[in-house]
Amino acid sequence: MRAAMYYGNHKLEIEDIPEPTLSAGQVKVRVSRNGICGTDLHEYYDGPIFIPPDQPHPLTGKSMPLVIGHEFSGVVTEVGPGVTDVNERDRVAIEPIYRCGHCRPCKTGRYNLCNSVGFHGLMADGGMAEYTVVPQDQIHQLPNSIPLEMGALVEPMSVAYHAAILGEVNDQSQALIYGAGPIGIGLWFALRGMGLTEIDVVEPSPTRRNAIEALGARTLDPTGVDVPELIADRTDGNGVDAAFDAAGVAPAIESALECIGERRPLISVAIYDKPLSTPLINLVLRERRIQGTICYTGDDYRAVIALMAQGHYDTTGWVETIPMSGVLEQGFEELRAGRKMKLLVDPTA
Amino acid sequence: MRAAMYYGNHKLEIEDIPEPTLSAGQVKVRVSRNGICGTDLHEYYDGPIFIPPDQPHPLTGKSMPLVIGHEFSGVVTEVGPGVTDVNERDRVAIEPIYRCGHCRPCKTGRYNLCNSVGFHGLMADGGMAEYTVVPQDQIHQLPNSIPLEMGALVEPMSVAYHAAILGEVNDQSQALIYGAGPIGIGLWFALRGMGLTEIDVVEPSPTRRNAIEALGARTLDPTGVDVPELIADRTDGNGVDAAFDAAGVAPAIESALECIGERRPLISVAIYDKPLSTPLINLVLRERRIQGTICYTGDDYRAVIALMAQGHYDTTGWVETIPMSGVLEQGFEELRAGRKMKLLVDPTA
Repeated sequence: MRAAMYYGNHKLEIEDIPEPTLSAGQVKVRVSRNGICGTDLHEYYDGPIFIPPDQPHPLTGKSMPLVIGHEFSGVVTEVGPGVTDVNERDRVAIEPIYRCGHCRPCKTGRYNLCNSVGFHGLMADGGMAEYTVVPQDQIHQLPNSIPLEMGALVEPMSVAYHAAILGEVNDQSQALIYGAGPIGIGLWFALRGMGLTEIDVVEPSPTRRNAIEALGARTLDPTGVDVPELIADRTDGNGVDAAFDAAGVAPAIESALECIGERRPLISVAIYDKPLSTPLINLVLRERRIQGTICYTGDDYRAVIALMAQGHYDTTGWVETIPMSGVLEQGFEELRAGRKMKLLVDPTA
Repeated sequence: MRAAMYYGNHKLEIEDIPEPTLSAGQVKVRVSRNGICGTDLHEYYDGPIFIPPDQPHPLTGKSMPLVIGHEFSGVVTEVGPGVTDVNERDRVAIEPIYRCGHCRPCKTGRYNLCNSVGFHGLMADGGMAEYTVVPQDQIHQLPNSIPLEMGALVEPMSVAYHAAILGEVNDQSQALIYGAGPIGIGLWFALRGMGLTEIDVVEPSPTRRNAIEALGARTLDPTGVDVPELIADRTDGNGVDAAFDAAGVAPAIESALECIGERRPLISVAIYDKPLSTPLINLVLRERRIQGTICYTGDDYRAVIALMAQGHYDTTGWVETIPMSGVLEQGFEELRAGRKMKLLVDPTA
C-alpha cells in the first residue's frame, strides 16, 4: 500500500509498504481522508519534535521512521479478536490518543494530559496511508449523515471544542476568537453549536476573514479597528465572557487580555514557539486568567460528531482534498505559504 | 492632629491638620498603627499612580493632596448618626475599599473589582494620621486577643488570603510560594490556616529565607537548587497543586509554570511594572492556568481575623513599629533598600 513515511527533517517519502496486520483488540481501517495539520508541518520543517527519533515510545514501541497522519476518517475493513461494537464497513473517525491508563491525569479522565501520551501518526504508524491499524478504543462511529471528508475533521474540531468548553460559556455569553485558521473556525462552530450568538473573530488576513465570514461569522480587522476600545463600548466596560487565542502571537494575547471581563478566561489553544511578552498586570487588576488547553478526550469527539450530525459544521470554502502524490508540493508547501487553509489527503489518489 | 500628607512624587509632608469631622453613617477612628505598603512606596517614588492628581475620585470626591495610609487599625472614638453595630472604644481593623454598589462586579459580590473602586488612603484621606473617618461598612471588629499591631496587618494578610482561596487547595494539597516578602509570608500563614502542611517558599534572599524559616516555614533557595527538578522528583512528576507568585519577576513565573500539575493554577498576586516574558507553551501542554488576584472582600477580612484570633499569625522577626516622625528616613527608605520587611507607623510618636 502507499504511505507517507517520515524519516526526519525535510524527509517525507511516498512509499509502497506492506499493509499493517491486526492483533487482538485492534481495528483495520481503510483511510478515506487524512488532514495535514500544523503539527505535521512542524515535524517536516523543524522536527523531529514529537516523533521519537530513536528511543521507542513507551506505549507504542515505535520510533522513526513511521507513517505520519493523525487526523483521519475511514471505513473498517477488519476487526481483530476481542473487538466488540466495531464491525466491517463501519464508517469511523479516529481519536488518535494512546494513554497509559494509570497516571494521575488518566485516572481523573484527563487522558489528553497522560504523562506518557502518544499519538497515532506521531508515535505509531498513522493515517496518511491506504490502511492503518488502531486500538479499538480510538474508534468513533460516524453516522451516515456525516461525509467522510468531514469525518477527517473531527480531530481538529475536537481540539477547538475542548478549548471552547474551557471557556465556561453559555448561550448568553459574548466571545472573542483570535485567529481564523482551522482551529479558529472550529472554535466558531463549537461556540455556535453551544448556542452563542455574540461571537467576533479577530483576524488581520483578509483571505481568512472572507473565508469565515462566508460561513456566517462576524469578524474584526485588528489593523483597522481598536478591538479593546470597541469591545469596551459594546459591553458597557464589562468585557467579553471568554476570549480564545488561536493565533499564537503577542498582539493577540495583549488585545485579548484587555477585552475579557473580570474573573473570565483567555483560553490559549496555540502552540507558542517561544515565550511571549505578556502583560500579566491585566490579569491581576481584573482577576482574569489565562487557561491552557490541548487536544481532547472522547467526550469532545462525541460532542463534535453529534453537532456535525445536526448540520453545525460546514467545509465550504476552507477545506480541499488533494491526492497523496501531491502531499509535499500541493500540501505542505501551500499550507506553509498560507495559500491554503485546510487540506485533506486522499491516500488512494 | 499630625498626618502624612501626599503632595505628589517625592513630596510627603508630616503636617498638623484639623481632625476630620463625622457625617452620618461614618465612624471616627483613633489610628493605632498604619502599615507602609509597597503601593505607598510606588506613589512616593514613581507616582502619583493610584492617587488622583486633580480629577476628584467619583466615589470619594477627593484628589491630591491627601493623607496616605490604607493598612491600619485603631480604636473608635465617635460614631455618626445612623451607625449601628459600631461603638466608641471598639477595637477595629479597616477594610479600606469604596465601591459603587451597582456595577457588575459589585452586584456579583466581587466589589474588589468594582469599576470605580477607591481606597481609603489613596482616594480619600487615610490612616497615616492620628485620626481618620471611614464609612461604617469599612469597619471590622477586632477581638481583644488580637493586638492592634497585628490588626494593622489584616489588610495585607487579606490580600494574601484572597490569593490563597483562588489556589483552590485543601489540606492535602502541596503548594509553592515564590517570594517571602509580606505577601509571601501572608500566603504561608493563610495556607497553613487552611490546613496545608506541604508548602515550600522559594526565595533567593537569605535574610528573607531566615525570617520566614523562623516562623516555621520550609524554604528553597532557587540560586542553589533546581526547583522544578526537585518538585518533579518529590511529586512523582505530578507537580504541585498550586503555585503563588508574590515575587513578580520572570524567573519566578518561569519556574512556577514548570512546577504546577495539570489543570492547576499559578496565582499571580504581584504588581508587574512591565509585561513579562511568559512561557505560555507550559500552560498549553498541561492545561495549566495563570490566575490574577487583587485585594479582598469582607469575607477575606473575616477569615483572617478568625485565624488571627486562633493564633495562626505571628509578627515576630518581620514586623516593626516606627514613629511617624521617621516615616521617610526610617520607613520608606529602609523598605525601598530592602533592609526592613514590614513597618508600621505609630502616628502619635
